[in-house]
Amino acid sequence: MSKIHLKIYLEQQRKRVNEAIHRYLPRPEGPAAPVIEAMHYSIAAGGKRVRPILMMAGCQAVGGQPEKIMPAACAMECVHTYSLIHDDLPAMDNDDLRRGKPTCHKVFGEAMAILAGDGLLTLAFELMAHPDLSSAASHLRQVEATRVFAKAAGHAGMVGGQTADILNENTEITPETLNFIHSRKTGALIRASVEMGAILGGGTKKQIDALASYGEALGLCFQVIDDILDVVGDETKLGKPVGSDERNRKSTYPALFGIEEARRRAEELRDMAVTTLQDFGHEAEPLRALACYIVDRDR
Amino acid sequence: MSKIHLKIYLEQQRKRVNEAIHRYLPRPEGPAAPVIEAMHYSIAAGGKRVRPILMMAGCQAVGGQPEKIMPAACAMECVHTYSLIHDDLPAMDNDDLRRGKPTCHKVFGEAMAILAGDGLLTLAFELMAHPDLSSAASHLRQVEATRVFAKAAGHAGMVGGQTADILNENTEITPETLNFIHSRKTGALIRASVEMGAILGGGTKKQIDALASYGEALGLCFQVIDDILDVVGDETKLGKPVGSDERNRKSTYPALFGIEEARRRAEELRDMAVTTLQDFGHEAEPLRALACYIVDRDR
Repeated sequence: MSKIHLKIYLEQQRKRVNEAIHRYLPRPEGPAAPVIEAMHYSIAAGGKRVRPILMMAGCQAVGGQPEKIMPAACAMECVHTYSLIHDDLPAMDNDDLRRGKPTCHKVFGEAMAILAGDGLLTLAFELMAHPDLSSAASHLRQVEATRVFAKAAGHAGMVGGQTADILNENTEITPETLNFIHSRKTGALIRASVEMGAILGGGTKKQIDALASYGEALGLCFQVIDDILDVVGDETKLGKPVGSDERNRKSTYPALFGIEEARRRAEELRDMAVTTLQDFGHEAEPLRALACYIVDRDR
Repeated sequence: MSKIHLKIYLEQQRKRVNEAIHRYLPRPEGPAAPVIEAMHYSIAAGGKRVRPILMMAGCQAVGGQPEKIMPAACAMECVHTYSLIHDDLPAMDNDDLRRGKPTCHKVFGEAMAILAGDGLLTLAFELMAHPDLSSAASHLRQVEATRVFAKAAGHAGMVGGQTADILNENTEITPETLNFIHSRKTGALIRASVEMGAILGGGTKKQIDALASYGEALGLCFQVIDDILDVVGDETKLGKPVGSDERNRKSTYPALFGIEEARRRAEELRDMAVTTLQDFGHEAEPLRALACYIVDRDR
Protein backbone atom coordinates (compact mmCIF):
# COMPACT_ATOMS: atom_id res chain seq x y z
CA MET A 1 0.00 0.00 0.00
CA SER A 2 1.55 3.32 -1.09
CA LYS A 3 1.72 6.31 1.22
CA ILE A 4 -1.02 8.06 -0.71
CA HIS A 5 -3.28 5.00 -0.55
CA LEU A 6 -2.64 4.67 3.17
CA LYS A 7 -3.57 8.31 3.64
CA ILE A 8 -6.89 7.80 1.85
CA TYR A 9 -7.50 4.54 3.75
CA LEU A 10 -6.85 6.19 7.13
CA GLU A 11 -9.09 9.14 6.28
CA GLN A 12 -11.90 6.83 5.23
CA GLN A 13 -11.64 4.59 8.28
CA ARG A 14 -11.40 7.55 10.64
CA LYS A 15 -14.57 8.99 9.12
CA ARG A 16 -16.38 5.66 9.53
CA VAL A 17 -15.32 5.37 13.17
CA ASN A 18 -16.35 8.95 13.90
CA GLU A 19 -19.79 8.44 12.36
CA ALA A 20 -20.37 5.18 14.22
CA ILE A 21 -19.13 6.37 17.59
CA HIS A 22 -21.51 9.31 17.58
CA ARG A 23 -24.31 6.95 16.68
CA TYR A 24 -23.47 4.69 19.64
CA LEU A 25 -23.03 7.52 22.15
CA PRO A 26 -26.22 8.41 24.06
CA ARG A 27 -27.96 11.75 23.49
CA PRO A 28 -27.35 14.38 26.17
CA GLU A 29 -30.83 14.69 27.66
CA GLY A 30 -32.52 14.40 31.06
CA PRO A 31 -31.06 15.13 34.51
CA ALA A 32 -27.74 13.39 33.66
CA ALA A 33 -27.18 15.33 30.41
CA PRO A 34 -23.95 17.07 31.57
CA VAL A 35 -22.03 13.80 31.98
CA ILE A 36 -23.13 12.71 28.51
CA GLU A 37 -22.03 16.10 27.11
CA ALA A 38 -18.64 15.57 28.75
CA MET A 39 -18.41 12.10 27.14
CA HIS A 40 -19.19 13.62 23.72
CA TYR A 41 -16.74 16.47 24.25
CA SER A 42 -13.78 14.19 24.88
CA ILE A 43 -14.70 11.75 22.11
CA ALA A 44 -15.15 14.66 19.67
CA ALA A 45 -11.85 16.24 20.75
CA GLY A 46 -10.41 14.13 17.98
CA GLY A 47 -7.50 11.83 17.95
CA LYS A 48 -6.29 9.64 15.15
CA ARG A 49 -8.57 6.68 15.98
CA VAL A 50 -5.49 4.46 15.61
CA ARG A 51 -6.82 1.69 17.87
CA PRO A 52 -10.22 1.15 16.20
CA ILE A 53 -8.54 1.33 12.78
CA LEU A 54 -6.02 -1.32 13.91
CA MET A 55 -8.88 -3.50 15.14
CA MET A 56 -10.64 -3.31 11.81
CA ALA A 57 -7.37 -3.98 9.99
CA GLY A 58 -6.83 -7.05 12.21
CA CYS A 59 -10.32 -8.25 11.31
CA GLN A 60 -9.63 -7.74 7.60
CA ALA A 61 -6.29 -9.58 7.83
CA VAL A 62 -8.07 -12.82 8.82
CA GLY A 63 -10.73 -12.40 6.12
CA GLY A 64 -13.44 -10.86 8.33
CA GLN A 65 -15.68 -7.90 7.48
CA PRO A 66 -14.23 -4.89 9.31
CA GLU A 67 -17.35 -2.71 9.22
CA LYS A 68 -19.35 -5.39 11.04
CA ILE A 69 -17.24 -5.19 14.19
CA MET A 70 -17.79 -1.44 14.53
CA PRO A 71 -19.32 -1.69 18.07
CA ALA A 72 -16.05 -3.24 19.30
CA ALA A 73 -13.95 -0.68 17.42
CA CYS A 74 -15.96 2.13 19.04
CA ALA A 75 -15.68 0.40 22.43
CA MET A 76 -11.88 0.51 22.08
CA GLU A 77 -11.97 4.27 21.37
CA CYS A 78 -14.25 4.76 24.42
CA VAL A 79 -11.69 3.04 26.66
CA HIS A 80 -8.82 5.01 25.14
CA THR A 81 -10.73 8.27 25.66
CA TYR A 82 -11.72 7.42 29.25
CA SER A 83 -8.05 6.75 30.02
CA LEU A 84 -7.07 10.17 28.69
CA ILE A 85 -9.79 11.91 30.74
CA HIS A 86 -8.72 10.22 33.98
CA ASP A 87 -4.96 10.62 33.23
CA ASP A 88 -5.44 14.37 32.77
CA LEU A 89 -7.15 14.85 36.18
CA PRO A 90 -5.43 17.11 38.75
CA ALA A 91 -4.72 14.11 41.01
CA MET A 92 -3.00 12.33 38.10
CA ASP A 93 -0.98 14.14 35.39
CA ASN A 94 -2.82 17.46 35.93
CA ASP A 95 -2.93 18.50 32.28
CA ASP A 96 -4.91 21.52 31.06
CA LEU A 97 -4.63 20.81 27.34
CA ARG A 98 -5.21 17.69 25.28
CA ARG A 99 -5.12 17.65 21.49
CA GLY A 100 -4.98 21.47 21.59
CA LYS A 101 -8.23 21.79 23.57
CA PRO A 102 -8.98 22.29 27.27
CA THR A 103 -9.11 18.92 29.04
CA CYS A 104 -12.46 17.48 30.16
CA HIS A 105 -12.17 18.56 33.81
CA LYS A 106 -11.20 22.09 32.74
CA VAL A 107 -14.50 22.40 30.87
CA PHE A 108 -16.89 20.30 32.96
CA GLY A 109 -15.23 20.20 36.39
CA GLU A 110 -13.53 17.30 38.15
CA ALA A 111 -16.65 15.44 39.27
CA MET A 112 -18.12 15.35 35.76
CA ALA A 113 -14.75 14.33 34.28
CA ILE A 114 -14.42 11.38 36.68
CA LEU A 115 -17.99 10.33 35.87
CA ALA A 116 -17.53 10.85 32.11
CA GLY A 117 -14.53 8.50 32.23
CA ASP A 118 -16.53 5.97 34.24
CA GLY A 119 -19.40 6.33 31.78
CA LEU A 120 -17.18 5.74 28.73
CA LEU A 121 -15.48 2.72 30.30
CA THR A 122 -18.86 1.19 31.10
CA LEU A 123 -20.28 2.06 27.67
CA ALA A 124 -17.34 0.20 26.13
CA PHE A 125 -18.49 -3.06 27.70
CA GLU A 126 -22.11 -2.33 26.81
CA LEU A 127 -20.92 -2.08 23.19
CA MET A 128 -18.97 -5.35 23.51
CA ALA A 129 -22.30 -7.00 24.44
CA HIS A 130 -24.23 -5.13 21.73
CA PRO A 131 -26.59 -7.14 19.49
CA ASP A 132 -24.94 -5.54 16.42
CA LEU A 133 -21.72 -7.30 17.38
CA SER A 134 -23.50 -10.61 17.99
CA SER A 135 -24.56 -10.54 14.34
CA ALA A 136 -20.91 -10.27 13.27
CA ALA A 137 -19.32 -12.89 15.51
CA SER A 138 -20.43 -15.92 17.53
CA HIS A 139 -21.28 -15.31 21.18
CA LEU A 140 -18.21 -17.38 22.05
CA ARG A 141 -15.94 -15.01 20.13
CA GLN A 142 -17.78 -12.02 21.59
CA VAL A 143 -17.03 -13.30 25.11
CA GLU A 144 -13.39 -14.08 24.20
CA ALA A 145 -12.81 -10.63 22.73
CA THR A 146 -14.38 -9.05 25.82
CA ARG A 147 -11.98 -11.00 28.04
CA VAL A 148 -8.92 -9.93 26.02
CA PHE A 149 -10.19 -6.33 26.14
CA ALA A 150 -10.81 -6.24 29.90
CA LYS A 151 -7.45 -7.83 30.66
CA ALA A 152 -5.65 -5.29 28.47
CA ALA A 153 -7.49 -2.34 30.03
CA GLY A 154 -7.30 -3.42 33.69
CA HIS A 155 -4.81 -3.85 36.51
CA ALA A 156 -2.62 -6.22 34.47
CA GLY A 157 -2.69 -3.84 31.50
CA MET A 158 -3.40 -0.15 31.10
CA VAL A 159 -4.46 0.61 34.69
CA GLY A 160 -1.32 -1.17 35.93
CA GLY A 161 0.86 0.78 33.51
CA GLN A 162 -0.60 4.12 34.53
CA THR A 163 -0.13 3.15 38.19
CA ALA A 164 3.55 2.35 37.70
CA ASP A 165 4.01 5.52 35.62
CA ILE A 166 2.59 7.75 38.37
CA LEU A 167 4.47 5.97 41.16
CA ASN A 168 7.76 6.35 39.28
CA GLU A 169 7.53 10.06 38.53
CA ASN A 170 10.61 11.88 39.81
CA THR A 171 12.55 8.67 40.27
CA GLU A 172 15.40 7.06 38.34
CA ILE A 173 13.94 3.93 36.82
CA THR A 174 15.43 0.80 35.33
CA PRO A 175 14.90 -0.23 31.70
CA GLU A 176 12.78 -3.11 33.10
CA THR A 177 10.35 -0.76 34.81
CA LEU A 178 10.24 1.47 31.72
CA ASN A 179 9.37 -1.60 29.68
CA PHE A 180 6.69 -2.58 32.23
CA ILE A 181 5.10 0.86 31.90
CA HIS A 182 5.34 1.05 28.10
CA SER A 183 4.04 -2.42 27.44
CA ARG A 184 1.01 -1.81 29.66
CA LYS A 185 0.14 1.88 29.49
CA THR A 186 0.02 2.11 25.70
CA GLY A 187 1.07 -1.29 24.44
CA ALA A 188 -1.68 -3.38 26.02
CA LEU A 189 -4.61 -1.67 24.27
CA ILE A 190 -2.84 -1.55 20.90
CA ARG A 191 -2.03 -5.24 21.11
CA ALA A 192 -5.59 -6.00 22.22
CA SER A 193 -7.02 -3.96 19.33
CA VAL A 194 -5.37 -6.13 16.68
CA GLU A 195 -5.99 -9.36 18.63
CA MET A 196 -9.68 -8.56 19.14
CA GLY A 197 -10.04 -7.79 15.44
CA ALA A 198 -8.60 -11.22 14.65
CA ILE A 199 -10.88 -12.96 17.18
CA LEU A 200 -14.04 -11.19 16.02
CA GLY A 201 -13.10 -11.59 12.35
CA GLY A 202 -13.06 -15.37 12.73
CA GLY A 203 -9.29 -15.96 12.76
CA THR A 204 -7.70 -19.31 13.60
CA LYS A 205 -5.75 -19.73 16.84
CA LYS A 206 -2.49 -19.40 14.87
CA GLN A 207 -3.65 -16.23 13.13
CA ILE A 208 -4.84 -14.68 16.40
CA ASP A 209 -1.47 -15.41 18.05
CA ALA A 210 0.46 -13.96 15.11
CA LEU A 211 -1.62 -10.78 15.13
CA ALA A 212 -1.24 -10.46 18.90
CA SER A 213 2.56 -10.56 18.39
CA TYR A 214 2.25 -7.94 15.65
CA GLY A 215 0.20 -5.77 18.04
CA GLU A 216 2.71 -6.25 20.84
CA ALA A 217 5.64 -5.03 18.73
CA LEU A 218 3.57 -2.21 17.24
CA GLY A 219 2.38 -1.03 20.66
CA LEU A 220 5.92 -0.69 21.99
CA CYS A 221 6.97 1.02 18.77
CA PHE A 222 4.06 3.47 19.12
CA GLN A 223 5.12 4.44 22.64
CA VAL A 224 8.80 4.90 21.72
CA ILE A 225 7.74 7.26 18.90
CA ASP A 226 5.40 9.09 21.33
CA ASP A 227 8.34 9.67 23.65
CA ILE A 228 10.53 10.88 20.76
CA LEU A 229 7.84 13.31 19.59
CA ASP A 230 7.62 14.72 23.10
CA VAL A 231 11.28 15.76 22.70
CA VAL A 232 11.58 16.75 19.04
CA GLY A 233 7.95 17.08 17.90
CA ASP A 234 6.10 20.10 16.52
CA GLU A 235 3.69 21.53 19.15
CA THR A 236 1.17 22.76 16.56
CA LYS A 237 0.96 19.29 15.00
CA LEU A 238 0.84 17.46 18.31
CA GLY A 239 -1.75 19.81 19.87
CA LYS A 240 0.13 19.77 23.16
CA PRO A 241 3.33 21.33 24.47
CA VAL A 242 6.49 19.28 23.89
CA GLY A 243 8.93 18.63 26.72
CA SER A 244 6.15 17.71 29.19
CA ASP A 245 7.76 14.35 30.00
CA GLU A 246 10.99 16.07 30.98
CA ARG A 247 9.15 18.71 33.03
CA ASN A 248 7.13 16.01 34.81
CA ARG A 249 10.35 14.00 35.16
CA LYS A 250 8.71 11.09 33.40
CA SER A 251 11.01 8.31 32.43
CA THR A 252 11.09 7.78 28.67
CA TYR A 253 13.04 5.75 26.16
CA PRO A 254 14.94 8.77 24.74
CA ALA A 255 15.80 9.89 28.29
CA LEU A 256 17.30 6.50 29.09
CA PHE A 257 18.99 5.75 25.76
CA GLY A 258 19.08 8.96 23.72
CA ILE A 259 17.08 9.97 20.63
CA GLU A 260 19.14 8.06 18.07
CA GLU A 261 19.01 4.77 19.92
CA ALA A 262 15.27 5.27 20.52
CA ARG A 263 14.69 5.83 16.80
CA ARG A 264 16.70 2.71 15.96
CA ARG A 265 14.65 0.71 18.49
CA ALA A 266 11.37 1.96 16.98
CA GLU A 267 12.47 0.85 13.51
CA GLU A 268 13.52 -2.54 14.84
CA LEU A 269 10.08 -2.98 16.44
CA ARG A 270 8.38 -1.96 13.18
CA ASP A 271 10.38 -4.61 11.31
CA MET A 272 9.48 -7.22 13.94
CA ALA A 273 5.81 -6.31 13.54
CA VAL A 274 5.93 -6.62 9.75
CA THR A 275 7.77 -9.95 9.96
CA THR A 276 4.96 -11.51 12.04
CA LEU A 277 2.67 -10.88 9.06
CA GLN A 278 4.65 -13.10 6.68
CA ASP A 279 2.01 -15.85 6.49
CA PHE A 280 -0.72 -13.34 5.68
CA GLY A 281 -1.57 -12.31 2.15
CA HIS A 282 -2.98 -9.24 0.52
CA GLU A 283 -5.63 -8.75 3.28
CA ALA A 284 -2.88 -7.77 5.73
CA GLU A 285 -1.68 -4.89 3.53
CA PRO A 286 -3.28 -2.22 5.80
CA LEU A 287 -1.49 -3.69 8.85
CA ARG A 288 1.86 -3.59 7.02
CA ALA A 289 1.28 0.01 5.96
CA LEU A 290 0.12 0.99 9.46
CA ALA A 291 3.39 -0.22 10.98
CA CYS A 292 5.32 2.13 8.69
CA TYR A 293 2.84 4.97 9.31
CA ILE A 294 3.31 4.71 13.08
CA VAL A 295 7.10 5.09 12.82
CA ASP A 296 6.89 7.95 10.32
CA ARG A 297 4.11 9.96 12.00
CA ASP A 298 4.76 13.48 13.22
CA ARG A 299 1.76 13.74 15.56
CA MET B 1 -37.91 -18.52 55.69
CA SER B 2 -37.78 -17.53 59.36
CA LYS B 3 -35.65 -14.63 60.59
CA ILE B 4 -33.15 -17.00 62.14
CA HIS B 5 -32.88 -19.03 58.92
CA LEU B 6 -32.40 -15.86 56.90
CA LYS B 7 -29.64 -14.79 59.24
CA ILE B 8 -27.80 -18.08 58.76
CA TYR B 9 -28.42 -17.96 54.99
CA LEU B 10 -27.05 -14.40 54.73
CA GLU B 11 -23.99 -15.29 56.82
CA GLN B 12 -23.26 -18.32 54.66
CA GLN B 13 -23.68 -16.50 51.36
CA ARG B 14 -21.62 -13.54 52.56
CA LYS B 15 -18.81 -15.92 53.50
CA ARG B 16 -18.96 -17.61 50.09
CA VAL B 17 -18.83 -14.27 48.28
CA ASN B 18 -15.93 -13.07 50.42
CA GLU B 19 -13.93 -16.22 49.76
CA ALA B 20 -14.58 -16.11 46.03
CA ILE B 21 -13.91 -12.42 45.58
CA HIS B 22 -10.50 -12.68 47.18
CA ARG B 23 -9.74 -15.61 44.92
CA TYR B 24 -10.67 -13.56 41.83
CA LEU B 25 -8.78 -10.43 42.90
CA PRO B 26 -5.19 -10.29 41.61
CA ARG B 27 -2.24 -10.55 44.02
CA PRO B 28 -0.56 -7.26 44.87
CA GLU B 29 2.85 -7.77 43.27
CA GLY B 30 5.08 -6.04 40.72
CA PRO B 31 5.39 -2.32 39.94
CA ALA B 32 1.57 -1.84 40.03
CA ALA B 33 1.11 -3.50 43.45
CA PRO B 34 -0.22 -0.35 45.21
CA VAL B 35 -3.31 -0.09 43.00
CA ILE B 36 -4.07 -3.77 43.64
CA GLU B 37 -3.63 -3.21 47.38
CA ALA B 38 -6.11 -0.34 47.15
CA MET B 39 -8.58 -2.61 45.33
CA HIS B 40 -8.22 -5.24 48.08
CA TYR B 41 -8.56 -2.64 50.81
CA SER B 42 -11.90 -1.34 49.60
CA ILE B 43 -13.28 -4.80 48.84
CA ALA B 44 -12.17 -6.04 52.28
CA ALA B 45 -13.66 -2.96 53.99
CA GLY B 46 -16.74 -5.12 54.19
CA GLY B 47 -20.28 -4.37 53.31
CA LYS B 48 -23.23 -6.66 53.42
CA ARG B 49 -22.69 -8.15 49.92
CA VAL B 50 -26.40 -7.56 49.31
CA ARG B 51 -26.06 -7.36 45.52
CA PRO B 52 -24.16 -10.62 44.93
CA ILE B 53 -26.47 -12.39 47.38
CA LEU B 54 -29.47 -11.05 45.46
CA MET B 55 -27.95 -12.26 42.19
CA MET B 56 -27.46 -15.76 43.55
CA ALA B 57 -31.00 -15.73 45.00
CA GLY B 58 -32.33 -14.68 41.57
CA CYS B 59 -30.44 -17.58 40.00
CA GLN B 60 -31.87 -20.00 42.56
CA ALA B 61 -35.41 -18.70 42.01
CA VAL B 62 -35.35 -19.86 38.38
CA GLY B 63 -33.85 -23.24 39.31
CA GLY B 64 -30.20 -22.43 38.53
CA GLN B 65 -27.14 -23.27 40.63
CA PRO B 66 -26.18 -20.10 42.51
CA GLU B 67 -22.60 -21.08 43.34
CA LYS B 68 -21.83 -21.53 39.60
CA ILE B 69 -22.43 -17.88 38.78
CA MET B 70 -19.94 -16.68 41.39
CA PRO B 71 -17.76 -14.75 38.88
CA ALA B 72 -20.79 -12.60 38.01
CA ALA B 73 -21.74 -12.17 41.68
CA CYS B 74 -18.18 -11.00 42.42
CA ALA B 75 -18.25 -8.73 39.36
CA MET B 76 -21.33 -7.02 40.82
CA GLU B 77 -19.55 -6.41 44.12
CA CYS B 78 -16.54 -5.01 42.22
CA VAL B 79 -18.77 -2.47 40.47
CA HIS B 80 -20.52 -1.55 43.72
CA THR B 81 -17.15 -1.07 45.43
CA TYR B 82 -15.68 1.00 42.58
CA SER B 83 -18.73 3.28 42.77
CA LEU B 84 -18.16 3.85 46.49
CA ILE B 85 -14.45 4.63 45.95
CA HIS B 86 -15.19 7.20 43.24
CA ASP B 87 -18.21 8.67 45.10
CA ASP B 88 -16.04 9.28 48.17
CA LEU B 89 -13.37 11.26 46.23
CA PRO B 90 -12.78 14.90 47.20
CA ALA B 91 -14.21 16.09 43.86
CA MET B 92 -17.39 14.09 44.51
CA ASP B 93 -18.90 13.58 48.00
CA ASN B 94 -15.56 14.12 49.77
CA ASP B 95 -16.07 11.52 52.50
CA ASP B 96 -13.30 10.51 54.91
CA LEU B 97 -15.05 7.48 56.37
CA ARG B 98 -16.81 4.51 54.80
CA ARG B 99 -18.07 1.55 56.80
CA GLY B 100 -16.20 2.93 59.80
CA LYS B 101 -12.83 2.94 58.04
CA PRO B 102 -10.83 5.66 56.26
CA THR B 103 -11.90 5.90 52.61
CA CYS B 104 -9.63 4.59 49.85
CA HIS B 105 -8.17 7.99 48.87
CA LYS B 106 -7.47 8.79 52.53
CA VAL B 107 -5.25 5.70 52.75
CA PHE B 108 -3.77 5.45 49.23
CA GLY B 109 -4.09 8.99 47.87
CA GLU B 110 -6.40 10.32 45.18
CA ALA B 111 -4.52 8.99 42.15
CA MET B 112 -4.47 5.42 43.48
CA ALA B 113 -8.16 5.66 44.48
CA ILE B 114 -9.20 6.78 40.98
CA LEU B 115 -7.13 3.94 39.47
CA ALA B 116 -8.40 1.37 41.99
CA GLY B 117 -11.96 2.26 41.00
CA ASP B 118 -11.06 1.99 37.32
CA GLY B 119 -9.34 -1.33 38.01
CA LEU B 120 -12.36 -2.79 39.83
CA LEU B 121 -14.80 -1.64 37.14
CA THR B 122 -12.63 -3.25 34.46
CA LEU B 123 -12.11 -6.42 36.52
CA ALA B 124 -15.88 -6.74 36.76
CA PHE B 125 -16.16 -7.13 32.99
CA GLU B 126 -13.18 -9.47 32.91
CA LEU B 127 -15.12 -11.64 35.39
CA MET B 128 -18.25 -11.43 33.23
CA ALA B 129 -16.18 -12.96 30.41
CA HIS B 130 -14.50 -15.51 32.71
CA PRO B 131 -14.34 -19.15 31.56
CA ASP B 132 -15.78 -20.21 34.96
CA LEU B 133 -18.97 -18.34 34.05
CA SER B 134 -19.06 -19.87 30.56
CA SER B 135 -19.31 -23.27 32.19
CA ALA B 136 -22.42 -22.15 34.10
CA ALA B 137 -24.35 -20.40 31.33
CA SER B 138 -24.39 -20.35 27.53
CA HIS B 139 -22.27 -17.71 25.83
CA LEU B 140 -25.52 -16.09 24.68
CA ARG B 141 -26.70 -15.68 28.26
CA GLN B 142 -23.25 -14.51 29.30
CA VAL B 143 -23.42 -11.74 26.68
CA GLU B 144 -27.00 -10.83 27.66
CA ALA B 145 -26.14 -10.60 31.34
CA THR B 146 -23.12 -8.43 30.49
CA ARG B 147 -25.36 -6.08 28.51
CA VAL B 148 -27.87 -5.75 31.37
CA PHE B 149 -24.96 -5.15 33.77
CA ALA B 150 -23.26 -2.46 31.67
CA LYS B 151 -26.54 -0.63 31.06
CA ALA B 152 -27.34 -0.61 34.77
CA ALA B 153 -23.87 0.62 35.71
CA GLY B 154 -23.45 3.26 33.01
CA HIS B 155 -24.78 6.65 31.96
CA ALA B 156 -28.38 5.41 31.82
CA GLY B 157 -28.01 3.79 35.24
CA MET B 158 -25.68 4.30 38.16
CA VAL B 159 -23.32 6.85 36.55
CA GLY B 160 -26.37 8.86 35.46
CA GLY B 161 -27.85 8.70 38.95
CA GLN B 162 -24.65 9.84 40.60
CA THR B 163 -24.39 12.67 38.05
CA ALA B 164 -27.90 13.93 38.82
CA ASP B 165 -27.28 13.54 42.56
CA ILE B 166 -24.14 15.71 42.44
CA LEU B 167 -25.70 18.32 40.16
CA ASN B 168 -28.71 18.65 42.46
CA GLU B 169 -26.84 19.15 45.71
CA ASN B 170 -27.96 22.34 47.43
CA THR B 171 -31.04 22.66 45.25
CA GLU B 172 -34.72 22.07 45.87
CA ILE B 173 -35.65 19.11 43.73
CA THR B 174 -38.92 17.68 42.49
CA PRO B 175 -40.15 14.20 43.42
CA GLU B 176 -39.52 13.26 39.75
CA THR B 177 -35.83 14.13 39.96
CA LEU B 178 -35.55 12.35 43.31
CA ASN B 179 -37.06 9.29 41.69
CA PHE B 180 -34.64 9.61 38.75
CA ILE B 181 -31.70 9.64 41.16
CA HIS B 182 -32.96 6.82 43.40
CA SER B 183 -33.92 4.49 40.59
CA ARG B 184 -30.50 4.88 38.96
CA LYS B 185 -27.96 5.50 41.71
CA THR B 186 -28.90 2.50 43.86
CA GLY B 187 -31.88 0.95 42.14
CA ALA B 188 -30.27 0.11 38.81
CA LEU B 189 -27.60 -2.23 40.18
CA ILE B 190 -29.99 -3.96 42.59
CA ARG B 191 -32.48 -4.57 39.80
CA ALA B 192 -29.68 -5.77 37.53
CA SER B 193 -28.37 -8.15 40.21
CA VAL B 194 -31.63 -10.08 40.39
CA GLU B 195 -32.21 -9.91 36.63
CA MET B 196 -28.68 -11.16 35.84
CA GLY B 197 -29.15 -14.03 38.28
CA ALA B 198 -32.31 -15.01 36.43
CA ILE B 199 -30.61 -14.75 33.01
CA LEU B 200 -27.53 -16.73 34.05
CA GLY B 201 -29.62 -19.28 35.96
CA GLY B 202 -31.48 -20.19 32.78
CA GLY B 203 -34.78 -18.39 33.44
CA THR B 204 -37.52 -17.99 30.84
CA LYS B 205 -38.28 -14.55 29.39
CA LYS B 206 -41.32 -14.33 31.70
CA GLN B 207 -39.30 -15.29 34.77
CA ILE B 208 -36.55 -12.81 33.92
CA ASP B 209 -39.10 -9.99 33.52
CA ALA B 210 -40.81 -10.86 36.80
CA LEU B 211 -37.51 -10.88 38.68
CA ALA B 212 -36.48 -7.59 37.05
CA SER B 213 -39.72 -6.07 38.43
CA TYR B 214 -38.97 -7.55 41.84
CA GLY B 215 -35.49 -6.02 41.68
CA GLU B 216 -36.87 -2.66 40.61
CA ALA B 217 -39.22 -2.42 43.59
CA LEU B 218 -36.58 -3.74 45.96
CA GLY B 219 -33.96 -1.28 44.72
CA LEU B 220 -36.22 1.71 45.39
CA CYS B 221 -37.16 0.25 48.77
CA PHE B 222 -33.46 -0.18 49.62
CA GLN B 223 -32.73 3.47 48.86
CA VAL B 224 -35.69 4.81 50.86
CA ILE B 225 -34.50 2.79 53.88
CA ASP B 226 -30.95 4.09 53.31
CA ASP B 227 -32.28 7.63 53.46
CA ILE B 228 -34.28 6.89 56.61
CA LEU B 229 -31.24 5.35 58.33
CA ASP B 230 -29.25 8.49 57.52
CA VAL B 231 -31.74 10.40 59.68
CA VAL B 232 -32.60 7.99 62.50
CA GLY B 233 -29.89 5.30 62.24
CA ASP B 234 -27.28 4.25 64.79
CA GLU B 235 -23.81 5.54 63.80
CA THR B 236 -21.98 2.60 65.35
CA LYS B 237 -24.07 0.12 63.37
CA LEU B 238 -23.90 2.09 60.12
CA GLY B 239 -20.17 2.73 60.38
CA LYS B 240 -20.63 6.30 59.19
CA PRO B 241 -21.98 9.51 60.70
CA VAL B 242 -25.74 10.02 60.36
CA GLY B 243 -27.15 13.30 59.11
CA SER B 244 -24.65 13.51 56.23
CA ASP B 245 -27.42 13.90 53.65
CA GLU B 246 -28.80 16.92 55.49
CA ARG B 247 -25.32 18.42 55.93
CA ASN B 248 -24.58 17.91 52.23
CA ARG B 249 -28.08 19.19 51.44
CA LYS B 250 -28.83 16.00 49.55
CA SER B 251 -32.42 15.53 48.60
CA THR B 252 -33.90 12.44 50.16
CA TYR B 253 -37.27 10.78 50.48
CA PRO B 254 -37.68 11.63 54.19
CA ALA B 255 -36.68 15.25 53.50
CA LEU B 256 -39.40 15.54 50.86
CA PHE B 257 -42.15 13.54 52.54
CA GLY B 258 -41.19 13.01 56.19
CA ILE B 259 -40.02 9.85 58.00
CA GLU B 260 -43.43 8.27 58.47
CA GLU B 261 -44.49 8.60 54.86
CA ALA B 262 -41.04 7.31 53.77
CA ARG B 263 -41.43 4.24 56.00
CA ARG B 264 -44.91 3.61 54.59
CA ARG B 265 -43.54 3.91 51.04
CA ALA B 266 -40.74 1.41 51.81
CA GLU B 267 -43.25 -1.13 53.10
CA GLU B 268 -45.43 -0.62 50.03
CA LEU B 269 -42.42 -1.28 47.78
CA ARG B 270 -41.54 -4.41 49.77
CA ASP B 271 -45.08 -5.72 49.28
CA MET B 272 -44.89 -4.94 45.56
CA ALA B 273 -41.62 -6.87 45.35
CA VAL B 274 -43.05 -9.91 47.15
CA THR B 275 -46.17 -9.87 44.95
CA THR B 276 -44.09 -10.18 41.78
CA LEU B 277 -42.86 -13.52 43.12
CA GLN B 278 -46.33 -15.10 43.22
CA ASP B 279 -45.70 -17.50 40.31
CA PHE B 280 -42.47 -18.74 41.90
CA GLY B 281 -42.32 -21.65 44.30
CA HIS B 282 -40.13 -22.65 47.15
CA GLU B 283 -36.91 -21.69 45.27
CA ALA B 284 -37.85 -18.00 45.61
CA GLU B 285 -37.98 -18.19 49.42
CA PRO B 286 -34.63 -16.35 49.84
CA LEU B 287 -35.88 -13.49 47.62
CA ARG B 288 -39.07 -13.17 49.71
CA ALA B 289 -37.07 -13.14 52.93
CA LEU B 290 -34.55 -10.66 51.51
CA ALA B 291 -37.34 -8.16 50.77
CA CYS B 292 -38.36 -8.21 54.44
CA TYR B 293 -34.74 -8.06 55.59
CA ILE B 294 -34.09 -4.94 53.56
CA VAL B 295 -36.99 -3.06 55.15
CA ASP B 296 -36.12 -4.20 58.68
CA ARG B 297 -32.35 -3.67 58.52
CA ASP B 298 -30.67 -1.21 60.88
CA ARG B 299 -27.43 -0.81 58.94
